[in-house]
Amino acid sequence: MFFDTSSANGKQAVTVLGLGNMGSALAAALLDRDHEVTVWNRTPGKAQPLVDRGARLAATPQEAAASNQLIIACVLDYDALFGVLDPFAASLAGKTLVNLTSGSPEQGHEAAAWAEKHGVDYLDGGIMTTPPGVGTPEVMFLYSGSPAVFATHRPTLEALGDPIHLGEDPGLASLYDSALLGLMWATFNGWLHGTAVVGAEKIEAKAYTEVALRWLKTVSVFMDTYAAQIDAGEYPGDDATVDVQIATIDHLLHAAEARGVDNALPELLKASMLRAKAQGHGQDSYASVIEALRKPGGAS
Amino acid sequence: MFFDTSSANGKQAVTVLGLGNMGSALAAALLDRDHEVTVWNRTPGKAQPLVDRGARLAATPQEAAASNQLIIACVLDYDALFGVLDPFAASLAGKTLVNLTSGSPEQGHEAAAWAEKHGVDYLDGGIMTTPPGVGTPEVMFLYSGSPAVFATHRPTLEALGDPIHLGEDPGLASLYDSALLGLMWATFNGWLHGTAVVGAEKIEAKAYTEVALRWLKTVSVFMDTYAAQIDAGEYPGDDATVDVQIATIDHLLHAAEARGVDNALPELLKASMLRAKAQGHGQDSYASVIEALRKPGGAS
Repeated sequence: MFFDTSSANGKQAVTVLGLGNMGSALAAALLDRDHEVTVWNRTPGKAQPLVDRGARLAATPQEAAASNQLIIACVLDYDALFGVLDPFAASLAGKTLVNLTSGSPEQGHEAAAWAEKHGVDYLDGGIMTTPPGVGTPEVMFLYSGSPAVFATHRPTLEALGDPIHLGEDPGLASLYDSALLGLMWATFNGWLHGTAVVGAEKIEAKAYTEVALRWLKTVSVFMDTYAAQIDAGEYPGDDATVDVQIATIDHLLHAAEARGVDNALPELLKASMLRAKAQGHGQDSYASVIEALRKPGGAS
Repeated sequence: MFFDTSSANGKQAVTVLGLGNMGSALAAALLDRDHEVTVWNRTPGKAQPLVDRGARLAATPQEAAASNQLIIACVLDYDALFGVLDPFAASLAGKTLVNLTSGSPEQGHEAAAWAEKHGVDYLDGGIMTTPPGVGTPEVMFLYSGSPAVFATHRPTLEALGDPIHLGEDPGLASLYDSALLGLMWATFNGWLHGTAVVGAEKIEAKAYTEVALRWLKTVSVFMDTYAAQIDAGEYPGDDATVDVQIATIDHLLHAAEARGVDNALPELLKASMLRAKAQGHGQDSYASVIEALRKPGGAS
């Protein structure tokens, strides 16, 4: 088995299952780095651009999986994944499955258990970019599962982006993925709200966003400071207190209301600050708002 | 009047009114850059650390204002500002007031009208950092009002941070300030939510935040792309559609729910995505969610 893992050029040969926009981008990034790539997709037409660039199209997923030791899967969801692999699971023993299908931490655990049962090495992964970003060295690919399996395949995974190993628990990649997307959506909505507010004064989104992106760098410095406070469980309000933020957010609420912009988001943010204040954090830093997000009697 | 604007070293002499944490930081930054600084505060004890560094303490705000052509004010609120300046407003003609007091765009307009009535040149400003950040060249100080007044005092304002002129409308600095704080709070809450979710798996805030801060750089790239879409009024969903995000956010809702983390924020985010979808943007990019934030019949 060891002898068919590398092509003549010393690069590991890889099978990619699933050629949606993301799966196709993964296969293309591997081809860019001179890996031999075998692909399969439910509808084979999607493979043509990759075949034109030298990928080998397998007629069945079983044939694709049999071709290489390393299998990267990126299909619609975990049901689709098991639907594809289950019929020939017994033939996968000794192979490595890197599963980049989007899912929940629980599904990551299930897939890891499935892999163990069939003697398959398993990494769960999260892709922290859109398809056009795949293959650029800055973008993060998050992995969880066996550190040894990660170390073995890291050189190949570097073709896709910067591979980051989060820990042995196979659910971590999906958990981080979900949490980070939550950060993205919250950031997007905060930015869109402000863009709509200043846009009412005929300020272009591009002009506002230039300032907003610089501001996000300052916000990042605050987050770095606050992360240490959260780990310490102490939130000294020596830069700006929750009380000060509560006094300030009304300016935004009034400005947005006057300009016909929906205030559900800043109202929710204010409510979370008021909850932190009610818990005794009025003179603490904004990091203390995390206490208002943890439900009493919650699992944390 | 022109002959007393500069000290012997050629640096403009400045009066700072208000010595809260922020006002004190402003005066200190000016002293750091070798400006002569005259200060006044309602309670004079706050001035001592600055006096120890060479600042001159005026006995009254009128004396402080009379000392220099350029007056920087950073007091509690606009009521406090007018309370301080009104008694000797007639003596201020020909001076420049740079008002860094936090307020609303409407208050910025009022202050500009007040200044015009009294023959005072006026800039409204917003400080995009906390007191410890004042004086570092990366932090943004936002100004609005006369471009000529800004150009004249720009060299002095550079002592405080990077001065950015937003436009002639004196309300713009406060409007941007509010909008940018809204972005900060939204980003904070999205980050704190994720920190709580992964924290339930004993991941330290510092470890998660390191990944989150890298991710924010990718998110910034998306925002840059989406800003151009908003200005064009077209939201091609060629990277990731609203439909895809709606399908994905449930993973976060389930993961957070299972870990005892309050889901009000992701539920609100999902509702805004569903509203955008209902408006016909399911196959568009996330930038289209701005349409769901503009109220029908709103002022925008």
